[in-house]
Amino acid sequence: MTTERARVTIAEIAREAGVSEATVSKVLNGRTEVAPATRARVQDLLDARGYERRGTRVEERTGLIDLVISEIDTPWSMDVLRGAEQEARRAGAAVVVTSTEGRDDASWLDRVTARRSDGVLLALAPLPAGGARRLTAAGIPFVLVDPVGGFDPAIPTVGVTNWAGALAATEHLIGLGHRRIGAITGPPELVCSQQRVEGYRAALGRAGLPVDEALVRFGDFRPGGGAEQARTLLDLPDPPTAIFAGSDLQATGVYAEAHRRGLRLPDQLSVVGFDDVALCEWVSPALTTVRQPLLEMARIAIRTVLDPPGTDQPLRIELATSLVTRESTAPPR
Amino acid sequence: MTTERARVTIAEIAREAGVSEATVSKVLNGRTEVAPATRARVQDLLDARGYERRGTRVEERTGLIDLVISEIDTPWSMDVLRGAEQEARRAGAAVVVTSTEGRDDASWLDRVTARRSDGVLLALAPLPAGGARRLTAAGIPFVLVDPVGGFDPAIPTVGVTNWAGALAATEHLIGLGHRRIGAITGPPELVCSQQRVEGYRAALGRAGLPVDEALVRFGDFRPGGGAEQARTLLDLPDPPTAIFAGSDLQATGVYAEAHRRGLRLPDQLSVVGFDDVALCEWVSPALTTVRQPLLEMARIAIRTVLDPPGTDQPLRIELATSLVTRESTAPPR
Repeated sequence: MTTERARVTIAEIAREAGVSEATVSKVLNGRTEVAPATRARVQDLLDARGYERRGTRVEERTGLIDLVISEIDTPWSMDVLRGAEQEARRAGAAVVVTSTEGRDDASWLDRVTARRSDGVLLALAPLPAGGARRLTAAGIPFVLVDPVGGFDPAIPTVGVTNWAGALAATEHLIGLGHRRIGAITGPPELVCSQQRVEGYRAALGRAGLPVDEALVRFGDFRPGGGAEQARTLLDLPDPPTAIFAGSDLQATGVYAEAHRRGLRLPDQLSVVGFDDVALCEWVSPALTTVRQPLLEMARIAIRTVLDPPGTDQPLRIELATSLVTRESTAPPR
Repeated sequence: MTTERARVTIAEIAREAGVSEATVSKVLNGRTEVAPATRARVQDLLDARGYERRGTRVEERTGLIDLVISEIDTPWSMDVLRGAEQEARRAGAAVVVTSTEGRDDASWLDRVTARRSDGVLLALAPLPAGGARRLTAAGIPFVLVDPVGGFDPAIPTVGVTNWAGALAATEHLIGLGHRRIGAITGPPELVCSQQRVEGYRAALGRAGLPVDEALVRFGDFRPGGGAEQARTLLDLPDPPTAIFAGSDLQATGVYAEAHRRGLRLPDQLSVVGFDDVALCEWVSPALTTVRQPLLEMARIAIRTVLDPPGTDQPLRIELATSLVTRESTAPPR
């Protein structure tokens, strides 16, 4: 995140803001003993003048990288943490884990800037308002892992090809002979949910099959969401013979609903998940799924913050998904 | 870990070791630029003279607590991390996660002492040789969470009543009418494995049932270990009608083997797990299990390192387990 353009100095910012250089430094370092109004004034000037720290901070590294994650209780989180921890350790650094517990909590920003983190990975956690500016001003590189939000081109991301993954999952089911295929995806406001539904529609379109809107469901990515939407789908007068779920965890909810109805998987219902976490091998039958290379995504994110590309262009990486066929899919009866 | 006995000073240690006070400080702070032989000599003296840092280090806290964990890819790890992260955050601190990846790796000791961690939680990771001494000398409190090893009385631990948990699980199955009950536990060298088998034996004994040694199996705590031992048990001429597994993850291996044989759970086979991780609700049927309060164990461990009890007695806590009845157990047919 370092460029070679002409730089404004701390002294110039201090003069213009009418504060001491020490105060500017405190703002840059995320120290909390600066009055909010002063911080805002200094921050606005730093931003307007394009202040950037010198060098790549290699010499002053703290050896700590922050992983800010919405929830720690999913297999998805474990894989992201595992990949980040491995790659950080390889680089002689360590990972500090903070959960936002799904709340719109920005207090981690203070702590991360105060301890001069070497970088921040945001995983399923949104960047708070002003967060990008504060991290950039503090010289702390950051990257979104598996971004679920919009497309701010200024924010570096490492994600996957959601559209292509959904296309492959649906084409797999069509190839097995399924014609009534249900799709459960995540909350409709998430870009990844939309992309996956579009991939599903595209596969049906390519095969000349109609899209029945009754078969497209939005839910949360959790087992409860999967069970609830599976119930709706299986209650249809003409229920689907296969369901493509939005996450492996959501797929376990589809399993639970099938079990409740005495449906045998895959003979009476085929199920495909999304993610390819260890859970896929823990459930019976083992889950066919779309593989997101979560460990690799986290590793790339760690490498990106430790060695940011020397351009003005924020990195936007989309890794390829792949279909992993296990025991939960079969031809319809 | 602070006591009020007469204290030896750094100056005295330095004089006796024939080094500078700075060198003694470096050893205490885990810095790496001390020759190994010198470090060993100074460390031996610090140990022999019972050197202890002054105060509780509240003023000089770094706000970082280390969680050293053998593997990050299990639901067990998730719960320990979640409890630790929540409690640390509540105390204004953050958790640094390091995985030993199951290896006997002591390199984290250097990093933890160098960065002056406020405390260390060891979860399913053994304390390396000399580790207790080095952490104590550096003034870094530590605690084993869910200890699997022996009974060194000098090492603080937070665990559960494994014996009572196994007793309750087995009595639950006996109460349902089962007479042939298989037990799969962890590796035989682990104390927790032995305690659980003893609890199982005690329940059978109390009910006047014989112990058939063919029904007692040791395996790893993973799905593969569960599947392998379930195969052996179900291949017996007189197979069990219920299996008590050593962990919830291991129980998923029992599920897989039952699924492979077309056995319906719980009608044709009852299964009880151990841990009560989220996975229990993700599998179908939902798993009856012995609840270890993992989040609470991690929270207590965090509080213990942040506010060590002011005694010479290391804390040894055993929390109570409880049986959580779900859908995987029923009377035998």
